[in-house]
Formats: sequence, C-alpha cells, structure tokens
Amino acid sequence: MISRERMARDFAAMEKCSDTAGAEGITRLAFTDSDWQGRAYIIKEMKAAGLTVREDAFGNVIGRLAGTQNDLPPVLFGSHGDSVPSGGNYDGAVGILSALEVIRSLQEEGFVPEHPLEVVLFMCEESSRFGAATLGSRAMRGKLSLEDLQRLQDAGGKKLYEVLQARGLQPDNLEFARYPQPPKAFFEVHIEQGKVLEHAKIPLGVVTGIAAPTRLRLHLHGKADHSGATPMNLRHDGLCAAAEIVLKLEALAGAQTEPPVVGTVGILKVHPGVMNVIPGECELGIDIRSISAAAKDKVEGELRQALEEICQRRELEYDLEEISKEVPVEMRPGMVDFLTERCRQAGEACLAMPSGAGHDAMHWADFAPVGMLFIPCREGISHNPAEDASLDDIVKVAKVLEEAVKAASSKSTVFK
Amino acid sequence: MISRERMARDFAAMEKCSDTAGAEGITRLAFTDSDWQGRAYIIKEMKAAGLTVREDAFGNVIGRLAGTQNDLPPVLFGSHGDSVPSGGNYDGAVGILSALEVIRSLQEEGFVPEHPLEVVLFMCEESSRFGAATLGSRAMRGKLSLEDLQRLQDAGGKKLYEVLQARGLQPDNLEFARYPQPPKAFFEVHIEQGKVLEHAKIPLGVVTGIAAPTRLRLHLHGKADHSGATPMNLRHDGLCAAAEIVLKLEALAGAQTEPPVVGTVGILKVHPGVMNVIPGECELGIDIRSISAAAKDKVEGELRQALEEICQRRELEYDLEEISKEVPVEMRPGMVDFLTERCRQAGEACLAMPSGAGHDAMHWADFAPVGMLFIPCREGISHNPAEDASLDDIVKVAKVLEEAVKAASSKSTVFK
Repeated sequence: MISRERMARDFAAMEKCSDTAGAEGITRLAFTDSDWQGRAYIIKEMKAAGLTVREDAFGNVIGRLAGTQNDLPPVLFGSHGDSVPSGGNYDGAVGILSALEVIRSLQEEGFVPEHPLEVVLFMCEESSRFGAATLGSRAMRGKLSLEDLQRLQDAGGKKLYEVLQARGLQPDNLEFARYPQPPKAFFEVHIEQGKVLEHAKIPLGVVTGIAAPTRLRLHLHGKADHSGATPMNLRHDGLCAAAEIVLKLEALAGAQTEPPVVGTVGILKVHPGVMNVIPGECELGIDIRSISAAAKDKVEGELRQALEEICQRRELEYDLEEISKEVPVEMRPGMVDFLTERCRQAGEACLAMPSGAGHDAMHWADFAPVGMLFIPCREGISHNPAEDASLDDIVKVAKVLEEAVKAASSKSTVFK
Repeated sequence: MISRERMARDFAAMEKCSDTAGAEGITRLAFTDSDWQGRAYIIKEMKAAGLTVREDAFGNVIGRLAGTQNDLPPVLFGSHGDSVPSGGNYDGAVGILSALEVIRSLQEEGFVPEHPLEVVLFMCEESSRFGAATLGSRAMRGKLSLEDLQRLQDAGGKKLYEVLQARGLQPDNLEFARYPQPPKAFFEVHIEQGKVLEHAKIPLGVVTGIAAPTRLRLHLHGKADHSGATPMNLRHDGLCAAAEIVLKLEALAGAQTEPPVVGTVGILKVHPGVMNVIPGECELGIDIRSISAAAKDKVEGELRQALEEICQRRELEYDLEEISKEVPVEMRPGMVDFLTERCRQAGEACLAMPSGAGHDAMHWADFAPVGMLFIPCREGISHNPAEDASLDDIVKVAKVLEEAVKAASSKSTVFK
C-alpha cells in the first residue's frame, strides 16, 4: 500500500539535497553536487526496493523490476530530479518519488507484473543550467548529439560534455543512451504548475496533451511625435497598435476553447518611453500555446490577419519574426480514458486537462502510449521557493499511478 | 519691409552660437557661452535697429522703441534664445529674430507708434539645463523667487544663483526683474512643434490657447502566472488591463474635439517582462492635455471611471497617482480674431489651433492680451537636429507680426 510516511521521509530527504539547504527553496541544478546527492538517494532507495539499477551514458537512472515475461516491452514511469535555482521541492520530485513508492507498494503486496517495470530518473530536465530542457529524455530518445554536448555550456563556461565526464559518465557513448524499444507505456506524475485543479477543487488531472509554444517577436514602427502638439487624428502611436494586438490575442485565445489555446504578450518594450513623446517603436514578445497544433496555428493566423489590419488602419509598419514553433503533443484518447478509469476506481475525482508547461513525457509520445497525471500546486506557483503541494494529493496520485502501472503491466491491457 | 536677406543672415549668425557649431544641431543651453554669444548678437542688432536696450536682474533683454505717448503701456513681443541640447535653429530663434526684423522694418518705414514697443529676449525658456522651463518669463512676472535660484541647479551642481552672478547679473535684485505694468499686448511667434499646419498645408497658425498637461502615474497589480499553464479565464493579466487603458484614453481624447484634448500613454513598463510569464505589474505614464481645463478634467474623469471598471472586471488592484496638473491658458477670442484679421490682410491663410507645447506667452495671459503665431516645422520635429522651418514661412509670419504690432500700438486698437 502507498505509504504516506515513506513518502514524507522521501520528500524530507530530497529537501536536504539542495545548495540552499536550510535556506528558502531548493537549488538542485543538473549534475551539481546537490543533484548528484539527490540522484544517489534515489538509486539507494531503488535498490532497497529491489530494483536492478543501471545508468546510461547521460546519467539517466533506470531501475528495473523483472516481469514474468522479460522479453516484453517494459512499463516505464518516472520523472526528473533536478530543479531550477530557488525552486521548490515538488517539481520533478513528485514524479520520481511516487514512482519509487509504487514499486515499494507493489513489492510489499508481492505483485508480479507480466511486463517488466522500469522506473526512470531523468537527468537535466530544467533548462536552468544549460539553457535547454529535457536533455535526459532527449538522450534516451536519440535526440541529443555529441555536438550538442560540446555546444551546450553553463554560465561558468563548462561544456555539458566535460560535466558528464567529470561525473564519470561516458559522453562519447551517448548513442547507447537511446532507449532500445518502445515501452509498453510511459507514465509521468507532475505538479500542475497552474491553477486549474486548485480552482476546480479537484485533486487529480489527467493530461490530454502537452502544449508547445509558438513564439513571435513583433516590432511596431510608429511615429514618435510630441504628445502635446500632435492631435489624436495625426498620430501613428505604436503603443496604441500594440494595445490592440494584446487585446486581440486575448480575445482570439479566449474564443478558442475546444481545444483550448492560451496567448500571452509577456514582453512589451516601449520607445522612447517618456511622458511627453508618443511611443514610436514597440517590441512585443508573443507566446501562443495549445495541445493542438491546428488550434494554435488558427489563432496565430487570425492574429497575423488582425495585425495587418491594425497596422494598415493606423498607417504604421511592422516586422514579425517567428522565434520558435514547437509541435505540441496530444495524448491518445484511449490513454486519457484509461487513466480516468484508474482515478474512478481509486474513488478520486479527476479533470481532463492540457499541460501548459513542457515535460519529459512529451519526448515519448511519438514512441509509446504516454499518460500523465497532475496534482494541484498551491496558487499555481512553481519554480519558486513558495512552490507547495499537499501530501494528501501526492498519496492520491501515487495510488492512481500504482493502479495504472499494474493494469498496464498486464498483457491483457492493450493501448490503442 | 520685412527683409528675407536680413533674416537669413540672422539665422546664419545664430547657428554659429552653438556648442556644436559645425556639427549637427544647435546646443545653446541657458547662460552658457554659446547662449551668451547669441544674446550678444541680439543686443547688438537691437541697438543697430535703434532700440534702447536694458537687461533685468535675470538677464532678460528688453529693447525699447519710444512711442509718441511714452506713458502708455508698451506693446511687448519676442521669444527666447536658448535651445535644448542637440536642438535646432528655429525653436525660440524664429520668435526673437522676427521681432527684431519687425523693428528694422518699422524703422525703415519711419513708423512711429503711439504706444512704445518693447522687444524681449527671454532667458532660459528650455528646462534642459535647470530642470524648469520659462524661467525668464517667470522672473518678469514675479513668479520666480530667490529660493528658486538657490534650489535650481544644473547637472554639474551649479546653482542658478551662482550662474547668474558669474554672468555679472544681480540675482539678489530678482524682484526688480518683475515687469512693472501690464503691457498693451504680448505677441510671440514660434514654430508649431507639431504637424497640424504641415498636414493642412497652411503657413500660419493663430494660437487659441496653450495646453497644459495633467500627468498621472498608474500602477496595475495583476498576477504573474505561468503563460502556458494558466487558462485565459483564470488570468489577471496586468498588460491586458493596461492595453484597455491605452485604447480607452485614445478613444476618450479622440472623442473630445471641441475644444480638443490629446491623451498619451508615453510610458508603459511591464514586469517581469519575459516570454513565459503573464505580466503582473504594469506601470503607465499618462499625459492628458488641452487648452481647456474643463475638457481636460472631463477626459481625466472618464478615464478614472473606465479604470475602475476595467480593474473590477479583471479583478486586479491599481494605484493612481497625480504627478502634476497644470492650468492651461485660453487666448482671448478677441485676440484670435485680431490676429486672424492681420493674416487675412497680409493675404495669408491661417488656422486657429491650440498649442500643445508650453511657451513664454503662457505666463503673460493673466496679465495682458496675448497673441501667438505659429509656422509649420518639417514633420513636426523640434528639439532635434532635424528641426527645420522654411524662410518663406518665417518671412510671412514676420509680416503678420509687423501688422499686428502696428495695429496694437495704436491707441485706437482696444483688446477685449
């Protein structure tokens, strides 16, 4: 049975693995001593739970529980152990510690799976140290190259390649980190990093897809005239055009509910930015996300149309640059149904919902049936010392994960 | 007759009075050597034109032409000689040089006024050096104190008091700089510093009033949530609220046409200002101007109402702070008619229009009938090396000023 006490002990242990131990928040940047200390704790506990532990060339840790049919593809589940600087004790940790606890519970029960089970601790999920996210998953999916290891470096100028070597890993063997076959299924548990569950007062979320951003940079070229001497009808105010864009994006994203799209202007710089000059130049950073590439593209297209209309009407020029356009992941409906049914059987309410943030899971969706479970985090806060989640919810999600792993490990369960 | 050649020579002479002589733009900060050099040129030319020249304790220069009835109040006209850093050769200079040329022309003609004429060169109109504008006019109107002279200092820490002393002036006699009696009329010619005349293709503007700003600082306190994980309906986006304010001000000012109001958000700072966080805090700098205090207050009141509604609807807090609320000047309708008639008689089209920028003239409006004439400046640009005005227009305005001064100097002209 999932043990609240064991999990409380695990979180307390992980909390100590931080460069800021004793101070506010968790700082456990990938491959630093604190990260290595956390990793060692997970390895120790995996072994104590009877798993056979291996590591790959990138440092990802895989703990295996044999099945009755060891040639069948494993059920893979886990999450990451690293954190952002001054982050919390739940992002990543909830996923890897619930996976660990599921194994302990199954072993106690004497459960023997048909498919083997593999618990995975991914390295370097956060982009904080090397400027790129989910590197451990990328390595396991063959999406990370030796060139990447030479190119990516931390703020101190240390190359990822050297960092791996210093940890006794084999960066030159990176290709062998590739996970050899599609797993039967991949599961990941994570804090929501949003307010949807808290707002709905529902303890569990079944992820329907992982949104990916399209990011645009927009420069509006208005006329920086005297704010006193220029009548309203002779203006080409860059900020007024920007304001229309901000509200148009809000309206377009708000209108697109099935599947939902979110649109944000997070950056708006106004030049010259003084009281007595009409803003000439404005720079906007636009972020549009959805779990549906089609819905995201629709909003982007409508926004581009509106932009053209606004700038024509206001007689000002613009430059629009695409910074990135990532492909979102949609979970298989069968998997959403499967996890919803596991929640139901555990007697817990759940909400089908998209993930706005990226996760290791997204790298597995083109390879295997992928399921993700969310729990609420207080006020939606993550990547912050104020990040918080309740142990009640963590125990609930571990129970559902346990049921999911059990069912998935049966030959009779077939994911469509 | 107004001489194009003399005026061209005057502008060429003033152009040399600059710290950036030979380089781009004019830099003639108040009381610097270049300003003193320009002042000396004006004094020399005043004397050459037969004026009796005096200076006051603040350094303002007054050149007097006696009238047939010297006990009558003088007709006063002129402008300032200083510039902003890297400014142009027209802001201020057009006014003082056309006043000078009017005297030359009248003397050539042998015109003898009934009221005495006084040409005034105001010191320190620009706020660039001491952070406060129209100081010469303030001194002449008794609105500048010895305490001000001790308090105001330039970027180098030099007090205005010391600067006056160093120029051989008598700051302790500041009270004697006060202009002793209401002049019969005060006239000032200036470049428009806006695009209205250029856009209307009309060479002359008759100023109906001088707008004064109400300035507000607005802080919007939204919620800085994750831009991927926060659905549109759970957001309290500070920038979206700010965008509504920007557009509301534009609409309110645009709708207020008689008398006109202009409203500008020149400052908008967005925090944290990153791509993946919904803007929480926004700071706006709001500038509302009109020649009508009532119209300005109306727009401000409507904006405050809209702000309240927007923030209630979006569930976010705000702080609104009044930075300044200056009182605009409305010209007497009789004076607007008088100058319009002078333009008509000179055969020049003119436009009645407000002044968006402040001028020395505004300090005289509570004391005497005040008239201002504008000429176009290219693309509305001023306070910039690209500032430009045509000598054709300058000659036109000088002719109209000449007619205005002649008519005003007659006892038979009574301003209502």
